[in-house]
Amino acid sequence: MAKQKKLVEEITSMDVDFAQWYTDVVKKAELVDYSGVRGCMVIRPYGYAIWENIQKNLDQRFKDTGHENVAMPLFIPESLLQKEKDHVEGFAPEVAWVTMGGSEELTERLCVRPTSETLFCDHYARVIHSYRDLPKLYNQWCSVVRWEKSTRPFLRTMEFWWQEGHTMHETAEEAIEETERMLNVYADFCEQALAIPVIKGQKTDKEKFAGAEATYTIEALMHDGKALQSGTSHYFGDGFAKAFDITFTGRDNTLQYPHQTSWGMSTRIIGAIIMTHGDDSGLVLPPAIAPIQVMIIPIAQHKPGVLDKANELLLKLKNICRVKMDDSDQSPGWKFAEYEMKGVPLRLEIGPKDIENNQCVVVRRDNREKIVVSLDELETRIPQLLQDVHDGMYQKALDRRKSMTYEVTGGLDDIIKAASTRPGFIKAAWCGDVKCEEQLKEQAGITSRCMPFDQKEPISDKCVCCGKEAKTTVIWGKAY
Amino acid sequence: MAKQKKLVEEITSMDVDFAQWYTDVVKKAELVDYSGVRGCMVIRPYGYAIWENIQKNLDQRFKDTGHENVAMPLFIPESLLQKEKDHVEGFAPEVAWVTMGGSEELTERLCVRPTSETLFCDHYARVIHSYRDLPKLYNQWCSVVRWEKSTRPFLRTMEFWWQEGHTMHETAEEAIEETERMLNVYADFCEQALAIPVIKGQKTDKEKFAGAEATYTIEALMHDGKALQSGTSHYFGDGFAKAFDITFTGRDNTLQYPHQTSWGMSTRIIGAIIMTHGDDSGLVLPPAIAPIQVMIIPIAQHKPGVLDKANELLLKLKNICRVKMDDSDQSPGWKFAEYEMKGVPLRLEIGPKDIENNQCVVVRRDNREKIVVSLDELETRIPQLLQDVHDGMYQKALDRRKSMTYEVTGGLDDIIKAASTRPGFIKAAWCGDVKCEEQLKEQAGITSRCMPFDQKEPISDKCVCCGKEAKTTVIWGKAY
Repeated sequence: MAKQKKLVEEITSMDVDFAQWYTDVVKKAELVDYSGVRGCMVIRPYGYAIWENIQKNLDQRFKDTGHENVAMPLFIPESLLQKEKDHVEGFAPEVAWVTMGGSEELTERLCVRPTSETLFCDHYARVIHSYRDLPKLYNQWCSVVRWEKSTRPFLRTMEFWWQEGHTMHETAEEAIEETERMLNVYADFCEQALAIPVIKGQKTDKEKFAGAEATYTIEALMHDGKALQSGTSHYFGDGFAKAFDITFTGRDNTLQYPHQTSWGMSTRIIGAIIMTHGDDSGLVLPPAIAPIQVMIIPIAQHKPGVLDKANELLLKLKNICRVKMDDSDQSPGWKFAEYEMKGVPLRLEIGPKDIENNQCVVVRRDNREKIVVSLDELETRIPQLLQDVHDGMYQKALDRRKSMTYEVTGGLDDIIKAASTRPGFIKAAWCGDVKCEEQLKEQAGITSRCMPFDQKEPISDKCVCCGKEAKTTVIWGKAY
Repeated sequence: MAKQKKLVEEITSMDVDFAQWYTDVVKKAELVDYSGVRGCMVIRPYGYAIWENIQKNLDQRFKDTGHENVAMPLFIPESLLQKEKDHVEGFAPEVAWVTMGGSEELTERLCVRPTSETLFCDHYARVIHSYRDLPKLYNQWCSVVRWEKSTRPFLRTMEFWWQEGHTMHETAEEAIEETERMLNVYADFCEQALAIPVIKGQKTDKEKFAGAEATYTIEALMHDGKALQSGTSHYFGDGFAKAFDITFTGRDNTLQYPHQTSWGMSTRIIGAIIMTHGDDSGLVLPPAIAPIQVMIIPIAQHKPGVLDKANELLLKLKNICRVKMDDSDQSPGWKFAEYEMKGVPLRLEIGPKDIENNQCVVVRRDNREKIVVSLDELETRIPQLLQDVHDGMYQKALDRRKSMTYEVTGGLDDIIKAASTRPGFIKAAWCGDVKCEEQLKEQAGITSRCMPFDQKEPISDKCVCCGKEAKTTVIWGKAY
């Protein structure tokens, strides 16, 4: 019991210091190691196994919607980055520059890709000639680099891992449809695989991607009431196509510019999983992406028959879920705390008395419920229980978001007061002027998260900031 | 027929110009695109699908042997690269240097990783404390950069994709065992998945990896008689551990240095697939990694019932192999040539007469054999035929290697003559002196590929170069 206590003590309580709680969990659960390279992280086996499960699940969704994977170069020549004006302005200040190859100075600097629109466009210009070549539905899994001042594991790192989809279409309509389709893929993935409820919406002009005509986003609410942008999907129109001279012969035999999208989700999402579901005992992982879904812990394992039975259950469950057994010398109490910290969705205890009764005890990580399961029903009950954990996690997160989302219908003073006293999503009307966004950021410390697709009835007909006529409802909040 | 002829004409014949044949195949089969970045390639969907299948197959072999995936940073600070003397001497001349972040000059240059021994060691120093922390069996999938002067798709590019395994062990014996185990994993993969026979052996000191005590290799013979190093596995002893101050408390309670290995296989292997199996009609892909294993081509598809039946077969086969159907407007002849060029292992033709007879015609890509298959037996015959294609490809490659491997038992003049007249692997005895290796490289244009593990009886007791006492048999050749 001393050991168990110590383990839990090592994690700072959320309510005491949320940022420290996050750092503790990331470290104690062995998700990452800080590296010797400023702002870059090492993703350790347990953290990487989560990312692999995310990749597998998302990649299948991309393939099911007709996308193909490719690999683009790591480097972008400076002249290529500069071809689209807004894009280079957005990214040039935060890229790493390669200026030497071996001992030679380069005649043209290469930046390490911060995102790959320019590389995809360079390729598309060579392979798109006719409407028959469209659509091009490409994706790549890679890491990108942005020269950040301050960094935090998963949430903001100089190098991060992601996928970036880049597509080209015959018409604007098709490209917009794709932008929406991929936002829905992200939202479904978050809700179905990660048990994270998200709000879908459009970014304001101030917050949209450098070079995009429109950016769509999914926004999730973390335990501390801060927002986390969890995936974005951009519509570019034909701006890049014109800058990169990508043309195709259309069905009517005229030369046309294709319409473009891009969309990405990154290792940031692991930060969202931690901060949506975690508690003071550590991680709580959604079953769909948990590296270990069930951990078998033999009780009184020195007693005859216990390990044999535990092994038998291990073999049985191997075909239906990701299962492991810990038969090490540590005490059961230590093991309980360890796998709670690592967020394993189900713990399965099996001891002499259980064996006598042809049963085992399954404990849910999300609500600590203990369920006695007959060994005859194990193979049907475990998948059900994993689904129950998922559903419980989703409902809990949704309830929290509801309780932390509120409307402000008054004026500037009201939203400043609300932002400083009640963490969460603030719904308030907006006139559409970027000056009001800037003022709210400065005075209330909040930014526009999105203009939600679901607008229903207007909250107010006046902008919460300037009092002029409101054009839309915006979700405001503090953000990671 | 005109179209078909044209397609095939676009590929230069192997015998006319092997290098041009390779370039044509890589381009016409749409495996890569040359990028706007010097020496960097774009891997297109069909090429990347091959790489994905390679990854999936190899990754499972790594996991089955107890390895875990991680992600290390892209950058190595100059001081970290310099910690192991031989290693930095080997790699520093060919790395890309990042000297600026945003608009600021860096106080310390970062190199883009050419390989990650130093990063893994930096991490291992922080996480290895006790013998209980060993072994560490890590792997990562990533791209690395080496500043090459001249480049060719897959074979030698500035950026290439690979996996790099990095492991740490309690004893030298365990580390050597791991080095051998992983070489065997590579050899099995080449033979079982890629149908490429390989020779296992050890590199000479001159050819071994910078910083390694021993490098093991698998060497394959290409169609033109040149060798391709297809995978390597290195034993480092405790050299890096000492340089990076990685220590652990052993079972006897003393402080010890762990023993290290690394091993890698890269996108080069796609070059080996192309040059081992390809022919004048294009690619010939091993079934295990072919993106499309069976291509269904409806014959006289406008006739009633043909497309329905073809679709029925497509659905049937979807559960047992990677299958597609081409019901486009192109002629069957065009389609035959197209999928031959793309190396699809089996073509399935189904037309009105076949339907009448409840059969289809299956054509093997490797030997063009036509097999009539009853539709009732399709689901059992297709997997068999895929296996037959694999076996046929392996045997053909093995026969070719045998016919192109020969012994030279005489002296320097004999091996110079042999090297200039007969392409292939040359087996000849060697005294162990690096000067003889250098002389053979200069005068015969060949390098030592490996000292094969399988040494059987000595070929000669005299070194083929200097005539002094021979210590070992070496396989010599020209190499990619």
